[in-house]
Amino acid sequence: MNMTTVSSTTDAATLDQVCSAIGPLNESAMEAARARQGTLTKPAGSLGRLEELSIQLAGITGTDIPEAPMKSAVIVMAGDHGVAAEGVSLFPQEVTPQMVFTFIGGGAGINVLARHVGADVIVVDVGVAAELEEHPLIRSKKVALGTQNMTQGPAMTREQAVRALCVGIEVAREQIDAGVQIFGTGDMGIANTTPSAALTAVIAGGSPEDVTGRGTGIDDDALNNKVDVIKRAIAVNQPDPRDGIDTLAKVGGFEIAGLAGVILAAAAARVPVVIDGFISGAAALVACAIEPKAKSYLIPAHQSVEVGHKTAMNHLELKPLLNLGLRLGEGTGAAMAISIVQSAAKILAEMATFADAGVSGAKE
Amino acid sequence: MNMTTVSSTTDAATLDQVCSAIGPLNESAMEAARARQGTLTKPAGSLGRLEELSIQLAGITGTDIPEAPMKSAVIVMAGDHGVAAEGVSLFPQEVTPQMVFTFIGGGAGINVLARHVGADVIVVDVGVAAELEEHPLIRSKKVALGTQNMTQGPAMTREQAVRALCVGIEVAREQIDAGVQIFGTGDMGIANTTPSAALTAVIAGGSPEDVTGRGTGIDDDALNNKVDVIKRAIAVNQPDPRDGIDTLAKVGGFEIAGLAGVILAAAAARVPVVIDGFISGAAALVACAIEPKAKSYLIPAHQSVEVGHKTAMNHLELKPLLNLGLRLGEGTGAAMAISIVQSAAKILAEMATFADAGVSGAKE
Repeated sequence: MNMTTVSSTTDAATLDQVCSAIGPLNESAMEAARARQGTLTKPAGSLGRLEELSIQLAGITGTDIPEAPMKSAVIVMAGDHGVAAEGVSLFPQEVTPQMVFTFIGGGAGINVLARHVGADVIVVDVGVAAELEEHPLIRSKKVALGTQNMTQGPAMTREQAVRALCVGIEVAREQIDAGVQIFGTGDMGIANTTPSAALTAVIAGGSPEDVTGRGTGIDDDALNNKVDVIKRAIAVNQPDPRDGIDTLAKVGGFEIAGLAGVILAAAAARVPVVIDGFISGAAALVACAIEPKAKSYLIPAHQSVEVGHKTAMNHLELKPLLNLGLRLGEGTGAAMAISIVQSAAKILAEMATFADAGVSGAKE
Repeated sequence: MNMTTVSSTTDAATLDQVCSAIGPLNESAMEAARARQGTLTKPAGSLGRLEELSIQLAGITGTDIPEAPMKSAVIVMAGDHGVAAEGVSLFPQEVTPQMVFTFIGGGAGINVLARHVGADVIVVDVGVAAELEEHPLIRSKKVALGTQNMTQGPAMTREQAVRALCVGIEVAREQIDAGVQIFGTGDMGIANTTPSAALTAVIAGGSPEDVTGRGTGIDDDALNNKVDVIKRAIAVNQPDPRDGIDTLAKVGGFEIAGLAGVILAAAAARVPVVIDGFISGAAALVACAIEPKAKSYLIPAHQSVEVGHKTAMNHLELKPLLNLGLRLGEGTGAAMAISIVQSAAKILAEMATFADAGVSGAKE
């Protein structure tokens, strides 16, 4: 098996270094972008969230007129969950590795949507519960063969949580070195709405009833069981909501940890990161619990159908760009939103000003 | 001046012919598309509105797996309004021709967003109140130098309304002949939220207070005046809400008529048409008042900030895809939504099935 075996001391140091590199947005670039928006040939504010996004991009990149982030990658982290044994999903666990191979074959939802917007799909095995054949398109960074069943103890050790965070950091750094200018987050892992709901309940402070949804489409009985499972996991583990790593280790998942690592590394490198749906939202909660300054680098892609997503977004004070009734995960919503972020940058960079175009402004 | 001078008898016949060519959606293609969605490697229904859009496209085109409509055009109709004399806009009327030249120069918001999604921008002078220099990129189909002031009588004659509808039909047919597979609607015309609000009030049945917004950004006093102007226009003209052409002629505008013509011609040719914001929504109200079967061919792009847009969308039973705080018009929201519609078609056509990918389905 191809377990990643960096020393936990090194991992902890890497994580600390990344977190301390995350700075605030560049206020002067934001001010310049805001001022430029006011000179473009349109009524002030009439492009709404596109204008806001362009200003956020200026702040993230520290440039008055940021280049449109056309080199984009959706990082799809795959992992399995011991809690799947509790019957919380409609699908069997074997679907996780099967979908990994669908991703590399190009036939999954994320492949279709990423191709449409010109984004790469980077598939990472951070904890699939199966030995996967080696393949050049799979980053093999397995921390373990799935998490432990969190109703019986912590899903992972603290060291494993930090390792999985570092997997995300490593993948993000590799992509940034290759020129990636914007990330989307994506997930695959049967049963992963269960740890995501647990993380949302603990970090954002919702009750398990209020943040637990039907995932792939479970019925009422299975939903009641899922809520009970989450309550037991929280009761058994007593995660500390002020300690993001503790909470992640006790009731999280490897792919969620990996995505939190991507978020932290992107923020440290001043690269915007588009957050997909409920699982990615849980990863954002973890990342911001570890380092709150990461929040400014997030762009929320879409409002998931999964009920707890709203709680997560509200806690992070993020307003999703799209509301298309999606609940697939994989980064599908993020791929679509990346195109909107690119549009926003192009509006700021490419629109004519009133002066350039010889267009009269508003009446005095 | 380059007025279009087709006989009104010919125009009326053309319009009748287009309206009678509009049929219902193809139910068997929709059923096939719906069934295929259930076989793709994702939980049933998990791509929400993308799935619905793909099924609508199947019904529109009459094909079980419709080709993604990659050849796309945003038709930007430009016209002026006699009612601008009543001080309803923040901008002077000269901005209409100035923006026409900004469109053909490529520097307007619609140019940037259309380029991003690969859509052509087709600019049509259907009633700008200025003699425009001839230019290969401007379709010169001027019906008149702007409408009359609708507070003092009808905005246009019934013959002019039918002519302007036919301008839209002509442009749409030209583009369909050139291979266009999906349209976006766009508008330019200083003061055009005023006739759009009047049309919305009459056809969708809202009160002028409830459907009149701030347009380019007018203050409270100007808003009160605008509501009063709309009330007077309706009182003076007494448009018949059951007669779309009568209502259009009395309180509409040339660019709105042109867009209604595009909608009708697209529906007749079984081509989907993405409706931009408030002005395009008013055009959709007019088109569907003339021929209700056109409604099935509409895809609502975005929820405009302009308050009456919600009334129009509710009346048409359309739920906009995007909610990005836009209120620019020009087809900007339509351009973004075209890309989403293309995504939806690609999902249906390109995703692997459970059987193809060897992925296990839901547990029994």
